[in-house]
Amino acid sequence: MKATIVTIGDEILIGQIVDTNSGFIAKSLDKIGVEIKEMISISDNKQHILDTFKNLQDQVDLVIITGGLGPTKDDITKKTFCDYFEDKLVVDEEVLAHVTELIEGYYKRPITQINKDQALVPSKCTVLYNKVGTAPGMWMKKGNTVFISLPGVPYEMQYLVEHEIIPKVVKEYERPYILHKTILTYGMGESMVAERIEDWENSLPDFIKLAYLPSPGRVRLRLSARGTDKAILEKSIAENVISLTKIIGEIIVGFDDDETIEVVVGRLLKQYKKTIATAESCTGGKIAQVLSSVPGASAYFKGSVVSYSAEVKTTVLEIPESVIEKYSVVSAEVAKLMAQNVKRLLKTDYAIATTGNAGPTTDLTDKQVGIVYIALVLPDNEVIVEEFDFGQPREKVIDRAVNKSLEILQKEILKNVL
Amino acid sequence: MKATIVTIGDEILIGQIVDTNSGFIAKSLDKIGVEIKEMISISDNKQHILDTFKNLQDQVDLVIITGGLGPTKDDITKKTFCDYFEDKLVVDEEVLAHVTELIEGYYKRPITQINKDQALVPSKCTVLYNKVGTAPGMWMKKGNTVFISLPGVPYEMQYLVEHEIIPKVVKEYERPYILHKTILTYGMGESMVAERIEDWENSLPDFIKLAYLPSPGRVRLRLSARGTDKAILEKSIAENVISLTKIIGEIIVGFDDDETIEVVVGRLLKQYKKTIATAESCTGGKIAQVLSSVPGASAYFKGSVVSYSAEVKTTVLEIPESVIEKYSVVSAEVAKLMAQNVKRLLKTDYAIATTGNAGPTTDLTDKQVGIVYIALVLPDNEVIVEEFDFGQPREKVIDRAVNKSLEILQKEILKNVL
Repeated sequence: MKATIVTIGDEILIGQIVDTNSGFIAKSLDKIGVEIKEMISISDNKQHILDTFKNLQDQVDLVIITGGLGPTKDDITKKTFCDYFEDKLVVDEEVLAHVTELIEGYYKRPITQINKDQALVPSKCTVLYNKVGTAPGMWMKKGNTVFISLPGVPYEMQYLVEHEIIPKVVKEYERPYILHKTILTYGMGESMVAERIEDWENSLPDFIKLAYLPSPGRVRLRLSARGTDKAILEKSIAENVISLTKIIGEIIVGFDDDETIEVVVGRLLKQYKKTIATAESCTGGKIAQVLSSVPGASAYFKGSVVSYSAEVKTTVLEIPESVIEKYSVVSAEVAKLMAQNVKRLLKTDYAIATTGNAGPTTDLTDKQVGIVYIALVLPDNEVIVEEFDFGQPREKVIDRAVNKSLEILQKEILKNVL
Repeated sequence: MKATIVTIGDEILIGQIVDTNSGFIAKSLDKIGVEIKEMISISDNKQHILDTFKNLQDQVDLVIITGGLGPTKDDITKKTFCDYFEDKLVVDEEVLAHVTELIEGYYKRPITQINKDQALVPSKCTVLYNKVGTAPGMWMKKGNTVFISLPGVPYEMQYLVEHEIIPKVVKEYERPYILHKTILTYGMGESMVAERIEDWENSLPDFIKLAYLPSPGRVRLRLSARGTDKAILEKSIAENVISLTKIIGEIIVGFDDDETIEVVVGRLLKQYKKTIATAESCTGGKIAQVLSSVPGASAYFKGSVVSYSAEVKTTVLEIPESVIEKYSVVSAEVAKLMAQNVKRLLKTDYAIATTGNAGPTTDLTDKQVGIVYIALVLPDNEVIVEEFDFGQPREKVIDRAVNKSLEILQKEILKNVL
């Protein structure tokens, strides 16, 4: 069973916004064994939309379309749907009642004609009711292909995928099993990993595909198995993961598919009942934000002092001015004191500190752009400080400093608990 | 002049990663007048890649391909390129010297055959030298279409777009002008705005297109003009913005295209020589991170106390335990004290505080998931506190709290300075 995802909207094609809807839909469909053949983004142009529909019909089982369902003039998907299916728009009374309730009852303002028009749907379509917004989804079949149109607002699209589309697809279609297993490694480059596991890779069965997903300092190896017998897939994946672990076990740090490093670190901290704080200069609070983005983070993350100005380092973090003058704000000594002092101040087991120059200018320091010091204090008060050159530009320096901080933390927690 | 962007990689099609490369390429090409016709994501499947190339040839002037150029076995773009152009791979000595220098000189490890193979390129291609990574870009023509292949690692792709592709396209192609102007409005829904400006919208000339880009609390209106005479486009855009301002001037808060609210707020603070700090609970440091993401933020952003645990609120932020006991951590009273105390502690003109429950559980408070209090202290010590219900899920609560905080700040700065 195959699907193609189509995103409609000029804002994507001119690079004004990044399409995150397609990824959500792909992940949801992949989980129930639907293979995504393509993702396509096209403009709000009627002829282009019609051509795209025509090309896709009978090529895939499902075409899922997002965008172009809003109340304003630049939204033309609904009219184009009518043209393609040779249908006409009619008022859906249930949608109209819902839109009226939402506008008059919840937003407390008079309903306009534009609002009312949102209840118009093609007469032959199956309406997918959108409880969290005003634009309904639509499900229509032509030839061997079902075309589904969804609003582009992410949480409305998500609601309809989870509550309407997935249950309907599961009920109406036979699907194969798709299993993914992602192995997270760190400390070795993509080409080195590939050399080490070459024989293992060549011995994988045909129904298992391997992909390398490199990112700074890390390589994820993803195994994807596809077939009709779930038990065979599971057994083969498990066996191959074991044989892989025998080859590169020392660089494997995690297994789960959706697990980010903050989730892994969070679980370790929670499991071993340890707490953490951060003192951040160049990362500007991003380590705190990433740690606290995990549901349940309050069990181990106590807080942070973002000392963006030097003054905050001396006042809140109580670093002597003489130390800053002697070594400069971007130095191993200042990073160390930041970490030690925030640990004491917030009474935690671990503390991370960053100080560096993310650029574009060098401000108050003698260090070049890209230089970052990361300090980590362990539960026994031992301090690790490392210097890095994260290059340019600014966002890369910040992101790499955040990643590296979490990597050092993860490595030390594992050392201390294993 | 038209282009299509093709992204190759199973990781995108199963929703494991979001494609951000296409947006970057689109924005860069749009600025020099190249229209993006489509963005397509396809799998690492040779036949599928060949079919896609064949469909695009002679349909657009440029096809820009990212992904599939890494050193490992799942990367097949280069071989497929050779098939499509009926060419063979040869060693490019300049690339080989660069890869050797990078691996042996910078990473200090022995070069492997896999590394060396990165210097293989189709014999007929124009090599785009990648100074920031090992995989070179390739530029090849077939029929009336130029196919450009780029590595998928974002900063390597960005380097090649900026330093190789854009200069080459500007030099070799005639292009029309494309002008965008984005008007940022807030406090009015998309359909209300549309009703108010209907007559104005209908009177726009054919060469100007209007798009509505709604997000929580805000609607951006984007005017896009395309034509050969830059002066006419500029004049018409300017005139239409003026006539729009006469209709909805009171809800317009900004004009520039790429300007995020943190950039606008940052410029205002810098211009009026004001400083700011944050005290964050449920937003976990994200307001600090967003404020400090702007280059030059150190001129106005002094720092933050992320008081994720109640204890940090009493110790670092010096909020009396009795207040927390009486009102609970998620309360207007606590938000107010957090803002006041961080302002005093960090000696700033403005201070923002957030406390709320982002979910999934309600932890130590009587307030339901989604309830957030935002406090803002002004330079004269006046405090504004507002309660919001940001619903669910967690990420939405955090993001809406961050956006709303910056909106309140922007509104108050404008009030105070205008």
